[in-house]
Amino acid sequence: MTDQTRSGIDALFRPRSVALVGASERPGALGAVVLGNLLDAGYRGDVHLVNPRHREIRGRPVHATVGQLPEGVELAIVMTPAATVPELITACGERGIRGAIVMSAGFREIGAAGAALECSMLEQASRHGVRIVGPNCLGVIRTDIGFNGTFSAAQALPGRIGVISQSGALCTAILDWASVNAVGFSSMISTGIGADVDFGEMIDFLATDAATDSIMLYVEGIHRAQPFLSALRAAARTKPVVVMKAGRHAEGSRAAQSHTGALVGSDNVFDAALRRAGALRVMDFANFFSTAAILSSGMRSTGRRLAIVTNAGGPGVMAADHAVDRGIRLAELAPATRRQLDAALPAHWSHGNPVDVLGDAGPPRYAAAVTACLADPGVDAVVVILTPQAMTPAEAVARAVLDAAAGSSKPLLTCWMGEVAVASSRALFRTRGVPTLRTPEAAVDAFAAIGTHGEAQSQLLQVPEPLAPECPPDVAMARRVIEQVLGEGRSVLTLLESNAVLTAFGLPIVPSLLARTAAEAVTIARDTGFPVVMKILSPDITHKSDVGGVRLGLADALQVETAFREMTSSVAAQMPAARLEGVVIQPMVRRAHGRELMVGILHDEVFGPVVSFGLGGTLVELLGDSAVALPPLNTRLAQDLVARTRAARWLAPFRGAPAADLAAVERLLLRVSAMACELPSLREMDLNPVIASPDGVTIVDARLVV
Amino acid sequence: MTDQTRSGIDALFRPRSVALVGASERPGALGAVVLGNLLDAGYRGDVHLVNPRHREIRGRPVHATVGQLPEGVELAIVMTPAATVPELITACGERGIRGAIVMSAGFREIGAAGAALECSMLEQASRHGVRIVGPNCLGVIRTDIGFNGTFSAAQALPGRIGVISQSGALCTAILDWASVNAVGFSSMISTGIGADVDFGEMIDFLATDAATDSIMLYVEGIHRAQPFLSALRAAARTKPVVVMKAGRHAEGSRAAQSHTGALVGSDNVFDAALRRAGALRVMDFANFFSTAAILSSGMRSTGRRLAIVTNAGGPGVMAADHAVDRGIRLAELAPATRRQLDAALPAHWSHGNPVDVLGDAGPPRYAAAVTACLADPGVDAVVVILTPQAMTPAEAVARAVLDAAAGSSKPLLTCWMGEVAVASSRALFRTRGVPTLRTPEAAVDAFAAIGTHGEAQSQLLQVPEPLAPECPPDVAMARRVIEQVLGEGRSVLTLLESNAVLTAFGLPIVPSLLARTAAEAVTIARDTGFPVVMKILSPDITHKSDVGGVRLGLADALQVETAFREMTSSVAAQMPAARLEGVVIQPMVRRAHGRELMVGILHDEVFGPVVSFGLGGTLVELLGDSAVALPPLNTRLAQDLVARTRAARWLAPFRGAPAADLAAVERLLLRVSAMACELPSLREMDLNPVIASPDGVTIVDARLVV
Repeated sequence: MTDQTRSGIDALFRPRSVALVGASERPGALGAVVLGNLLDAGYRGDVHLVNPRHREIRGRPVHATVGQLPEGVELAIVMTPAATVPELITACGERGIRGAIVMSAGFREIGAAGAALECSMLEQASRHGVRIVGPNCLGVIRTDIGFNGTFSAAQALPGRIGVISQSGALCTAILDWASVNAVGFSSMISTGIGADVDFGEMIDFLATDAATDSIMLYVEGIHRAQPFLSALRAAARTKPVVVMKAGRHAEGSRAAQSHTGALVGSDNVFDAALRRAGALRVMDFANFFSTAAILSSGMRSTGRRLAIVTNAGGPGVMAADHAVDRGIRLAELAPATRRQLDAALPAHWSHGNPVDVLGDAGPPRYAAAVTACLADPGVDAVVVILTPQAMTPAEAVARAVLDAAAGSSKPLLTCWMGEVAVASSRALFRTRGVPTLRTPEAAVDAFAAIGTHGEAQSQLLQVPEPLAPECPPDVAMARRVIEQVLGEGRSVLTLLESNAVLTAFGLPIVPSLLARTAAEAVTIARDTGFPVVMKILSPDITHKSDVGGVRLGLADALQVETAFREMTSSVAAQMPAARLEGVVIQPMVRRAHGRELMVGILHDEVFGPVVSFGLGGTLVELLGDSAVALPPLNTRLAQDLVARTRAARWLAPFRGAPAADLAAVERLLLRVSAMACELPSLREMDLNPVIASPDGVTIVDARLVV
Repeated sequence: MTDQTRSGIDALFRPRSVALVGASERPGALGAVVLGNLLDAGYRGDVHLVNPRHREIRGRPVHATVGQLPEGVELAIVMTPAATVPELITACGERGIRGAIVMSAGFREIGAAGAALECSMLEQASRHGVRIVGPNCLGVIRTDIGFNGTFSAAQALPGRIGVISQSGALCTAILDWASVNAVGFSSMISTGIGADVDFGEMIDFLATDAATDSIMLYVEGIHRAQPFLSALRAAARTKPVVVMKAGRHAEGSRAAQSHTGALVGSDNVFDAALRRAGALRVMDFANFFSTAAILSSGMRSTGRRLAIVTNAGGPGVMAADHAVDRGIRLAELAPATRRQLDAALPAHWSHGNPVDVLGDAGPPRYAAAVTACLADPGVDAVVVILTPQAMTPAEAVARAVLDAAAGSSKPLLTCWMGEVAVASSRALFRTRGVPTLRTPEAAVDAFAAIGTHGEAQSQLLQVPEPLAPECPPDVAMARRVIEQVLGEGRSVLTLLESNAVLTAFGLPIVPSLLARTAAEAVTIARDTGFPVVMKILSPDITHKSDVGGVRLGLADALQVETAFREMTSSVAAQMPAARLEGVVIQPMVRRAHGRELMVGILHDEVFGPVVSFGLGGTLVELLGDSAVALPPLNTRLAQDLVARTRAARWLAPFRGAPAADLAAVERLLLRVSAMACELPSLREMDLNPVIASPDGVTIVDARLVV
C-alpha cells in the first residue's frame, strides 16, 4: 500500500515508518544506539527491525531480511557493512521503501574499491526509485515527528533551526552544546558523502518545511554548484541561511579534500556565491554557535544601529570597538532618550552611547536604561552588559531587563560576564529565549548576524537585466575567433584576436594596427597620431615587456623607426625561436585624471566563470585589491562589486580630480559578465590596465586564454 | 617602629599589617565586604579597624580614628567619602602608614570639584610620604600573603599571573570566570584613576615580584607614556606581558575618555609602542581569557609550527584555517612520524597534518597520535580536538592524552567540543594545568599567544645605534631654521626652509632653486638640466597642485617661460591674497624602476613623535598602507617597520624590475628617526613622494610643520 503521493524526500525527512537494517541489542553497537535514540526521542511512526541473527530485540520482533518487512515501510536506516549496501538498496526498492539513510562507511572515501561500490549502490537506487542520504553519515533528526535516526549521543531539543552538516562529528558537538544552551532544532541532517541526495535537495526541503524558520549549513566542499546555489538562493528568500565553510586556505583545503573528496574552489569565489545567494557566512565555531543562539531566539532586525547598556566602562568600550570593526553603527541617542536617562541615572552616567549605568547599578537603573533605549526610534537593537560587582544582584537585574524588554519587538542581546555569579542569569535568559553571550564582542557578532541578514535580502531582489539594447554583442563573431584559436591548438589569443573578441562584445579596447616593417610602422603611427605605443606581436611571447617588446610615448617618426629596429632585434636576440609577426601600433592613452583598473574573468573549479575587478597596473599583484562576483551581473550587482574594492574610493572625486565615469565602468562590467556567460570556452581574461577617467573607459591591454 | 627599609610600594603590595578605614558590619556595605574578603582570604598580617561609630565589629576592637591606631601599621584601605580622604591621608602619614588603597569615588571623574580634592589628597600624600593606589578602585589582591583588599564578590585562586586593570568591573568578571576555570593569580591590582601609583610603578613591581610569572594589563588610556613604556619594556624582558586595550576606534575612545579621563592616542601608535616594548596584544575578551588560561599553564614556546590531532575532519580544517590567518605554520610531519602514525592508525587516517584519527578513535589512537606528534622535532606544539561522537569515551581520551603528553615539554592545548559530554574532561584538563578551549579557533589563538611571545622577545634585544659616523646631523642648523619660523609665528615651513632642515640631517632632498622672474627661471632650468619641475612658492599655499601651482616635465626654455607666466597668473587669479615669493625649479626625478614611498613623522597625543612609512604618491590616502614605529630606530627596527607594509613587497624585485636600494631606505628612516628625537618642535613631517630605485632614494616633496 505504497502512498504514490509521497516522494523519496518525504520518506527521508518525514518518514511515517522506518526499518532499522542492522538493529542490535549489544550495548554500544551502532544498531543499538540508533534504536535507542529512535525510541528515546518518542518517534510517532512504526519502527521495524531487521537482523538475520536475532528474533527479538528489546521485546520487539526482528525480521530476518528486508524482503520480510510488512508493506508500507517508508524509510530504511542501513547500518551494515558497505559491501552489503547495494543489494540492500535493491531489496528496499523491491519492498516499496523510498528512502534510505546509509550510515555505513567504506565508499568513495576509501578509494577505488569503495567508489565502485558506491556506483553500484547508486545504480540500484536509481533503478528502484530509492533516494539515499549518506553514505558515511550520522543520520537525520526531525524533532516535529520525534524522529532521531542518528547515532548521536545527545538528543535534540525541539526548535525551529534546520542544520545540514557535511561533518557528522560537528552535529554531535552542536547537539551537546545546544542541550545546555536551550537551543532547539527542527532538523539535523548529516550529509555524509552526499552520493545521492545532497545539499541542493536538502536545502530545498528545509526551505519549504513549515517546522523550520532558519537554516544553518556546515560545508567542507561542494560537489554540484548549480543545485547548491539555486537552492540556497530560493531558501534565503524566505528564511535566514547561515553558512560556515571549512577550508578557507590551501592548507586547510588539502585536509578537507582528503576528508570528503569534494571539490574545493577558491574561497573568495565561494564568498561571492553566498553573497549572491543572500546567505550569511560565519567564519568560526564561536560565531556559528552564537548565530545559532540568536536564530533560535527568533529575533530579526532590519537596522544596524546599536545601543549598549553596561555597568562597566571597559566592556562597553570593547563592545563599541567591535561594533565599529563589524560595520555596526552606534546609535545616536535622541534628546528625549537622554532626558529620560538623565532622570533615571546618577549625574555621572556616560551621557552617551554606550550607556554606562555605573558600577553600583541595580535592577531599577538597568530597567530604566533598557526601556529608554528600546523606545528610541534611532535604536535598532540593544546589547546589555553586566559585570558582577560586589553589590550587583545579577539575576534580579536579568529579570528586570527581561521585563523592561517584554513589550519591545527590537532585538535584545545580553552579556553577563564571569561564570559562577552569572550562571543563574544566563540560564534565565536561555529559558526566556533571549540570546546571552559570554563576551561583549560575541554579543555584537550575534547582532551583526541578524543585521546582515536584512542586507543580504536586498541582494536577492536583483535579477540580471539585458545588455543595453542599442549594442547587442556579436557572439557568433567572438565564437568564430575562439574556435579558430582552438583549432590551431593554441590557448592564448594574440593581440589582434583579443581585440576582435572584445570588439564583438562592444568593449572599448584601444585600436591596434599591425606593422610588418619600420616604414609601415611610421605610416601607421602618423595616421594614429603621435605619441604612440609599440608592442611586438608574437604567438610565442606573452610577457612582452620582459623582452624589451613594449615602447611607450614615441613622439615622432624617427623615434618610431628606431624603436621598430631596436625592438625586433632585441626580441630576436633574446628569444631567437619566437615567431615574430610584426609590431602593433596603438595611440598612447593619456586621459586626464585617468585611473588604472583591472577587470577579468577567472575560472573557479567549483563555480565556473567569475568576474573580477580591482585596482590595475603593476600594483595589482602587490595590493591584491580585487573582488569577485558570479555572473550574470546587473547594474546593481556591478555597483556592489565595485564598492567592495579600494578602487571604488579612487574612482570617486579624489584630491582635486573629478570622479571617473562610474557608469562606463559598470557598463564594462556588464559586457564582461555577458562574455563570461556567452563564451564558455573563455577560461581566463585579464583586461589590465583599463583606464577610467571622467570621460569614459579604455582598455589598454588584454590577455585572453581559451 | 616603622621599618625604614620598606617603601610605600611594599606597603601597598606586600603589607604586613592593614587598617580598614570605614570598616562596617552592615551586610552589603563596602566596609563589611572588604573586611569579609580580607578575613576569608586568610591574610597573614594584622588587621585593624577604624570607624568612629563602632566599638567592635565581628568581635574585633575598632579604633575611632587613624591617629589611635597602634604603631607599625603599613597600609590603610580607605572607604570613606571623597571629602574625608585628604585629611585621612594626612593622618595616615602622621601615624607612619606608608600606603593607602583609596576605594572612594568622587575625584577627577566627577569634574572640577573632584579634581581639586584629588590635588589636595596628592599634596598631603607627597608631604607625608604616603603612596596611593586609586582612588575609585576595587583594591588589591596578593594571594601569596592571603591578602584580598578588594570589594570583589569572588576570591582569587593562588597562581602566578599578575593582573593590572584600569577597570575594577573587569577584575570582578575575571575572578568570577577564573574560579571555575582553575586559573589562579599572584596579584590583582585595580588602578582606579591612577592618581599616584600608576601602571609604570605597578608593572615595575610585578616585573621583579618572585610570585609573578606573567603579567596581564587591561588598559583604557595612558596618563604617563614614558614610565609606562619603560616599565613595560623592562618587564617584558623577563616575563610575558599581555595587554588588552579598550578604545581602538574613535567611537569607543570617546566612551573611554569620559570614563577614566585618560588621554587616548592613536591606536596604531599604541600598537607600535607595545611592539617596541615586547608586549603581546590581545584584541578581545575571549582572547584575554584564553591567554590567561595558557599563561596560567606555565607553557612557553619558541617555535610556531603546530600539529593538530582530531577525530573529526571539519574542526581540524577550521583550526588549520585559523592557524594560517594567525601566521602559525602547520608542521610538516617527519617521515618517521608518518610511519609511527601509519602503524597506529587505521589505513584511512588523513596521512598529514591535521592528523585525523577518525570518528571512532578511542584512547589508544589519540595517545599514539599525540605521542608521535610531540616527539617530532619539526613540531613545536600540539592542539588536540575531540568531538563527542556516540562511542567516544571523552574523559578516557582526555586521560590518555594527558599521559601521552606527560613527558614532553612542548605546549599541549586541548579543545573538547560540546558541553555536557565534555564537562568532566574539561575539568580534568583544568586541574592538570592543561589549557582547554571551547573552539578550535580559540585553541589556535592561545598557541599564537605563546608563539608571539618568543618573537616579541627578539625585538627587545634591539638598542638604537648611532647614525653613520661619516655624516653627523647639523642639529644646530636645523634648530635655527625652526626657531626662525616659530619666531615669525608660522607653523608650516616653506619649501626652501624644509630643504634646509632635511639637508642638515643629511636627507637626500631633490635640489631646489628659487626663480623670481621668468628669465631667472629659464637660466636656472638650463643650469639644472631639462626636463625640470616647477612649483610656486608661497607661505600661504600648502596644497600647490590644487591651484595649478605645480608643473612637471618641462622640456625646454620656452616651456619654462610659458609655465612661469601661466602659473603665477593662475595662482594670482585663484588666491589673490596669497603672498607669492616666486617659483622653485627642480630637476625632474625620473629614476628607472622608481617606487613612490611616503616617510613621515606624526605626533601622538600620548606617545609623542612617531615615524611612519608606507606606499607614497596620491594612492597613499586611498590605500592606507602605512605602519608606524616609535623612535629611536636602529637598522633592525627600521627593517621591521618596512616589513610591516605592503610597500615592502614592492621594494623587492618586482615584475622584472630589480630590487630597490633597501639599505638606502633604511638609512633614510634612521635619519628621520634622529629628526624625531632631536627636533622636539617638529610636530609633523610628510616626505611624499620619496622615490626609491635600485640606485638609491630621493625625496621629491616635503611638508614640515612645527
